[in-house]
Amino acid sequence: MTARKLTIADVAERAGVSKGLVSFALNDRPGVAPATRERILRIASEMGWSPSLRARSLSTRRSFALGLVIARDPEVIGSDPFFPSFIAGVESVLSTEGRVLVLSVVPDQEAELMTYKSLVADGRVDGVFVSDLRHDDIRIPVLEELGIPAVTLGVPDVPSPFPAVTIDDAVGIRAAVEHLVALGHTRIAHVAGAARFLHGSRRRGAFEQAMRDAGLEAGQSVDTDFSIAEGSAATRRLLAQAERPTAIIYANDPMAIAGLAVAQELGLRVPHDLSITGFDDTDISRYVFPALTTVGTDPAEWGRAAARSLLRLMEAGESDDVALPSAELVVRRSTAAPGRP
Amino acid sequence: MTARKLTIADVAERAGVSKGLVSFALNDRPGVAPATRERILRIASEMGWSPSLRARSLSTRRSFALGLVIARDPEVIGSDPFFPSFIAGVESVLSTEGRVLVLSVVPDQEAELMTYKSLVADGRVDGVFVSDLRHDDIRIPVLEELGIPAVTLGVPDVPSPFPAVTIDDAVGIRAAVEHLVALGHTRIAHVAGAARFLHGSRRRGAFEQAMRDAGLEAGQSVDTDFSIAEGSAATRRLLAQAERPTAIIYANDPMAIAGLAVAQELGLRVPHDLSITGFDDTDISRYVFPALTTVGTDPAEWGRAAARSLLRLMEAGESDDVALPSAELVVRRSTAAPGRP
Repeated sequence: MTARKLTIADVAERAGVSKGLVSFALNDRPGVAPATRERILRIASEMGWSPSLRARSLSTRRSFALGLVIARDPEVIGSDPFFPSFIAGVESVLSTEGRVLVLSVVPDQEAELMTYKSLVADGRVDGVFVSDLRHDDIRIPVLEELGIPAVTLGVPDVPSPFPAVTIDDAVGIRAAVEHLVALGHTRIAHVAGAARFLHGSRRRGAFEQAMRDAGLEAGQSVDTDFSIAEGSAATRRLLAQAERPTAIIYANDPMAIAGLAVAQELGLRVPHDLSITGFDDTDISRYVFPALTTVGTDPAEWGRAAARSLLRLMEAGESDDVALPSAELVVRRSTAAPGRP
Repeated sequence: MTARKLTIADVAERAGVSKGLVSFALNDRPGVAPATRERILRIASEMGWSPSLRARSLSTRRSFALGLVIARDPEVIGSDPFFPSFIAGVESVLSTEGRVLVLSVVPDQEAELMTYKSLVADGRVDGVFVSDLRHDDIRIPVLEELGIPAVTLGVPDVPSPFPAVTIDDAVGIRAAVEHLVALGHTRIAHVAGAARFLHGSRRRGAFEQAMRDAGLEAGQSVDTDFSIAEGSAATRRLLAQAERPTAIIYANDPMAIAGLAVAQELGLRVPHDLSITGFDDTDISRYVFPALTTVGTDPAEWGRAAARSLLRLMEAGESDDVALPSAELVVRRSTAAPGRP
């Protein structure tokens, strides 16, 4: 009886090589020198490694790849660190498993569905990630019909056979509102994401509910496409009003950073004249001035958890839903009590 | 005789469907309803479409995928928009061609080589991008030996059979130095990237040469891993000196934005007390305050050009080197004449 499952890391340490090399050798992937492969297999065998996974992989056709299809403007992928961070998390798991990611960025939902069908029909992926869930998301029944393992980021609002990896971001939005209310703010605005996404409408709902619970008017919500340009423009409109908000909650960090710049350009001091909160706690949020109060969702950890969940589903045939720790407010220097006029 | 080559866009417009759908239908990809496919093929045929590409694709084993292997810390991919923007550019070309990107982020060069070999041996990709060229880059002879089409981002310093897609970024660094010198700066520092990359050492060389040509001392260069954290720390060290620089040239925009924040936190006014330039002209650079003077390399266009070059190489068997317009300085508000003490 072994106390715990032998891992690739154990074999790598004993053999004095990288985890990636062990994975490649055990999975019989090309690119490993024969002598090295033999030595790793011998050490793994001595340590009690069972070749069952390897045998399974040879007996069934497997692509050793996972798929991610993103239906957004390619430019948004380049400017919002959420997807790069999420992908980095996925890759950090796949790279030790000898697997790769098939990434497709497509212009619309029609192309999105075709791409999923094509990836599956070609045997190009063993499983897929489903991000940016929408209301009545057609991808759920289509992927079920295709019979491909999948994990969803968040819980769909339609019946789904797939495990969901979830971060409760409503908790973070609520915490942001409560933090601002406790500081004395009453005119709080929300520069939101796109309402066609479940996460967009859920965050907006959480914002409105938290405002009501605080006994405040609903507050202005402005929808955007998550781009920096729209975040900047929304800030200008909000601050041009006679009764301007004293605090703005943004749906991502890049829009919050753009809002910070608009305020500074208008001669408003952040946080004295305007408090600002971001979303996702991306790397840059702590390196702007003042450092950004933001809602920490840890996209990289989300990517790691989703990758592990999908691999488990593919190996074991089942995988439970995973609830990551709720999004928490990270209070830095961009929020304070509203200044007197 | 047709005046110009019939494009997928022409067929899409006539058929009243998306370019992606036309591409899928013409390439006989799964996921298109039979009636729709037939209608598109009929319209394309009426317009003079030749089925040669489709015939070729059916007669040879093709994966309809291109590969990109990145050997960097996954976190850097998440915080520096260069790669996401480059990938967005690649995807914008692939999505209209019915192709996908296989992306692998690996921890080291050993895993990098294994991944290339594995991708090729499995027939998983039809061609690969080679980014972050290093001195004596081993990937060039390895990929040549593997017989896989490839394009390099930049020109290697070893003999290479592959087309190179190049942006002369030395021109941009030189322009930044000359701009700052013309404004009256003499103490100019450089927060550089990693010297192990050709682009890192070339930019550093360009900086030092431009300083010499201006009759100035070489100026301080600090190497970093391109991360925001190291860019911030380098700025603190530079500004803590008795004879602090009056201008800092950064190797990417996120480090420049972090530098801007350090200056503001120290009570220095940008640009009056410190001028700052970035690199890559990423989306956010125009939305910080003051808007960033930066060197425009257009990573998305680089991605589009590299994808087109690789597709041409795969279709036609050859592809010329492509020199994109030289990186140009985009002067915004973060640079000015040095203030009097």
